[in-house]
Amino acid sequence: MTSAIDAPTSTTAPVRTSPARALVCRGCGAEYPLAAQHACFECFGPLEVAYDPAALAQVTRAQIEAGPRNIWRYAGLLPAGQDAAARVTLDPGFTPLVAAPALAAELGITAPVHVKDDSANPTHSFKDRVVSVALTAARGLGFTRFACASTGNLANSVAAHAARAGVPSIVFIPGDLEQGKIVTTAVYGGELVAIDGSYDDVNRLCGELVETDEFEDTAFVNVNVRPFYAEGSKTLGYEVAEQLGWRIPSQVVIPMASGELLTKVDKAFSELVEIGLVDAPADGWTVFGAQSAGCNPIATALHQGTDTITPVKPTGIAKSLNIGDPAAGAYAIEAVRRTGGWMDYADDEEIRAGIRLLARTTGVFAETAGGVTVAVLKKLVDAGKLDPAKETVVFNTGEGLKTLDAVAGQVGPTHRIKPSLRGVRDAGLLG
Amino acid sequence: MTSAIDAPTSTTAPVRTSPARALVCRGCGAEYPLAAQHACFECFGPLEVAYDPAALAQVTRAQIEAGPRNIWRYAGLLPAGQDAAARVTLDPGFTPLVAAPALAAELGITAPVHVKDDSANPTHSFKDRVVSVALTAARGLGFTRFACASTGNLANSVAAHAARAGVPSIVFIPGDLEQGKIVTTAVYGGELVAIDGSYDDVNRLCGELVETDEFEDTAFVNVNVRPFYAEGSKTLGYEVAEQLGWRIPSQVVIPMASGELLTKVDKAFSELVEIGLVDAPADGWTVFGAQSAGCNPIATALHQGTDTITPVKPTGIAKSLNIGDPAAGAYAIEAVRRTGGWMDYADDEEIRAGIRLLARTTGVFAETAGGVTVAVLKKLVDAGKLDPAKETVVFNTGEGLKTLDAVAGQVGPTHRIKPSLRGVRDAGLLG
Repeated sequence: MTSAIDAPTSTTAPVRTSPARALVCRGCGAEYPLAAQHACFECFGPLEVAYDPAALAQVTRAQIEAGPRNIWRYAGLLPAGQDAAARVTLDPGFTPLVAAPALAAELGITAPVHVKDDSANPTHSFKDRVVSVALTAARGLGFTRFACASTGNLANSVAAHAARAGVPSIVFIPGDLEQGKIVTTAVYGGELVAIDGSYDDVNRLCGELVETDEFEDTAFVNVNVRPFYAEGSKTLGYEVAEQLGWRIPSQVVIPMASGELLTKVDKAFSELVEIGLVDAPADGWTVFGAQSAGCNPIATALHQGTDTITPVKPTGIAKSLNIGDPAAGAYAIEAVRRTGGWMDYADDEEIRAGIRLLARTTGVFAETAGGVTVAVLKKLVDAGKLDPAKETVVFNTGEGLKTLDAVAGQVGPTHRIKPSLRGVRDAGLLG
Repeated sequence: MTSAIDAPTSTTAPVRTSPARALVCRGCGAEYPLAAQHACFECFGPLEVAYDPAALAQVTRAQIEAGPRNIWRYAGLLPAGQDAAARVTLDPGFTPLVAAPALAAELGITAPVHVKDDSANPTHSFKDRVVSVALTAARGLGFTRFACASTGNLANSVAAHAARAGVPSIVFIPGDLEQGKIVTTAVYGGELVAIDGSYDDVNRLCGELVETDEFEDTAFVNVNVRPFYAEGSKTLGYEVAEQLGWRIPSQVVIPMASGELLTKVDKAFSELVEIGLVDAPADGWTVFGAQSAGCNPIATALHQGTDTITPVKPTGIAKSLNIGDPAAGAYAIEAVRRTGGWMDYADDEEIRAGIRLLARTTGVFAETAGGVTVAVLKKLVDAGKLDPAKETVVFNTGEGLKTLDAVAGQVGPTHRIKPSLRGVRDAGLLG
């Protein structure tokens, strides 16, 4: 729409075109055009977005810093969203990096600890990042309806994004979902389809629907546009580095469901070094993964010295991490091994204690996934796996208000008294 | 602590000293030093912070824009918080101003409508603003314990702020509070005192405790440091103006509990004009107030043509607005009359419809107070009180996750099907 005059490029002018060049198979390396495809036609391996290195190398700190205070400041490093007017987004991201000295002290960590608090996103989980990128790519690819299978955070985010954009949505959920989780999606007014079956049944059905003619106009965020979706998680890594003053932390502790978030934060750090936006740390960085004991197939494989994931039937309170057959598990193991990290898992009691520890020491109230991460942080320190003398960033991916039941039985009033000074005195509150 | 060298003042250097000069009685104009005092010794009227006009006049747009993306960018216009290291804060503020074209269209408003979405604050309500200012002032005044009486948002915010700052807290709540609201305060680990009695009983007790020797170290955010607390609400007005490109909107619709938020947004606009940070709009601005039908003493007084508030016993689902004897009601009426505005109230069904309308058209899921505001916006348009040809900003002060029950009976799955293509087809979802 603009004229063809070649004005000199300012270093703070936003990037106008996508730096993505292809989808590449993570298994065999086969390349495909940037389209709605998530598996390799050759080997059925998962596809990942690949970029033009020259395009990435044009991105500058000044350009990023002049951008909006959300994920789109990194549009020059993402596969979609360069045209602000064409975004489908709630403008998530640039969530707080909270200094956590009291948490560090309580765990015996002498170096700084920070909490990357993604509960501050618009629908209060990191899913807003991946959904914004997926749906923006989807609209660019011509899709006119947005869909997903989900039991919680993803459903909230897709329905809210669709409402903001004025695009029809259709969210598929297991029929026995708790009412609270239904309300937080249904309130946005899209189609909400309850399936008589388990989450696995819902997922399988979505895999079938995406192949039908009737759904050819529909982008399932974590199915047919999954490669774009997954790239959204890179922004968590970019933000941490920028918020530390363009520096990569020595250690990161990241919750794992599919394992994809962990691999993308690692990828983000690598890209920043390759582009030259940050200096490569002398000792590199170390990536740690956290699962719940009720769904620990990735950590178990690592512990057993293999990278073959044996699927499990998930149990336990950390439902947002309950993916029994994690698609990116092997890649997460690769990243953790390559960087000298480790994985561990926490049981339900440890998760509850992790939520309370984080809240008490930082004022951040995390959902169960955040409890998993803090509990595993503690285990890694206690086991000598995580170096207490090195700076560490812990990722909280969701909001405690969404999983109130996890701690409802454990916390309550510390005193019950009559409404009188005597009541206060008898409770020992008047010194 | 800094040296006495008089360096030339940069326009982007942060303000180092408080511009506040005194506490002034809103009733008789008596002045008092800046201390923990909330009522006039002469006439028992409420005290308000007064500023040195010369100090305010030194604040520049460049200085604000160079500041952090939170309320503290306006430290030069607040009574406390100029020293970043001495703040007690979760760094709230600079919440999204969301364009709402679909909401406008549905209500027949032809000019732009924006939603100021304060659910994006750290504990997901506007209370984080007032608590940050109150507790920062309190620490500066020497208080070593933080307290409040509350039934919800305020309790969450005080407990979370105290946890972040590592300061003891003591929160007083009615003994019959729902468990969900107890959890969201108790999880932060401070003292939580359940009182056998109503919220009025709790409030009365706090008023007594603040006079005791044993509580002389304790700042009750909305009692003894209330004048500072109330100033935090000004930041909502500053942000709206800055986010509109340093412009005051023609019309604002604001929920009322004590009525204070409305008066402070109006005060913020006046200050910006006086300082010269924005031009005075040709037609001024118009302030509208929203209450729930279950607690409408301010709107009722306005409708009756008086400014004498007759207290009510609150009922209805908009509990965060349920103050039956609103301290700033007469001042809210003054602001609304002076600016040519109006007030109205919405019943529980209208509030539920307001929550759903906002979610469906903007992707913002508001607590009941937000439903009140949207419902009243609709009434004001329908009654011809609000000009549909003028730009309007609607304030959402809290998060839908905190009041799920309000809409839980109204929204749910749109379809229930078997996990098969036939199930999808039979539901009419396959075209």
